[in-house]
Amino acid sequence: MSGVPILRLGDVLVTGLLNELDDKAAIAFTEELTERIVADRARAVLIDISRLELIDSFVARTLMELTTTARLLGARVIVAGMRPAVAITLVELGLQLSGVETTLNAEQGMIALGWQPASRPPKGGPVDPLR
Amino acid sequence: MSGVPILRLGDVLVTGLLNELDDKAAIAFTEELTERIVADRARAVLIDISRLELIDSFVARTLMELTTTARLLGARVIVAGMRPAVAITLVELGLQLSGVETTLNAEQGMIALGWQPASRPPKGGPVDPLR
Repeated sequence: MSGVPILRLGDVLVTGLLNELDDKAAIAFTEELTERIVADRARAVLIDISRLELIDSFVARTLMELTTTARLLGARVIVAGMRPAVAITLVELGLQLSGVETTLNAEQGMIALGWQPASRPPKGGPVDPLR
Repeated sequence: MSGVPILRLGDVLVTGLLNELDDKAAIAFTEELTERIVADRARAVLIDISRLELIDSFVARTLMELTTTARLLGARVIVAGMRPAVAITLVELGLQLSGVETTLNAEQGMIALGWQPASRPPKGGPVDPLR
């Protein structure tokens, strides 16, 4: 196991990448995610990278291999929350993540995948009068 | 940073607990999650524990402190995907997670928080004729 949680929301797998991604963890994560796509018959994968503040060529390559593999398995791939510095580095490295959808944040990604966000206040939830 | 991604979906923070949770990571995770609740003005926290196969008294205590702290901050807490062995251990330890909602899986948790799952096939998504 890679130490990165992969959550299943319906037929969408939701996961995130962190700064602290070494070689071993990256390989384990890629293996685990691809296995989960098949085992869970996932329609789509949402990868939140908002916690990635910088990206080096190794992590960039991992991200590209991951998204390409997921697409080959038939899953729709959305990369959410990319920071400007990361986008600039990817372009400089010549990695355009072609075929991968990107969204501003994880919420927009879930909406793109057909999930409808909660209306506020939610049914049965506590009401905060200050909000 | 604890090394566990915390995703923000609207005003819901989504995260997961893994088997490999040592003392240091547990404390870092609790701190980070509580800080994120305040910083993101989160209405609710969904903690997926489907990857926790067994629970010891330390992780059980961490889970309880985490959920209680989140509740005190005003967030609704949902623990999703608890395995039977974990539930049995919690009861044996006398930890009833009072005030915490539990759901069968993360999807049901998001639905409880007001999110509507995607209808299939999704708008604009690829159609799999075999599904």
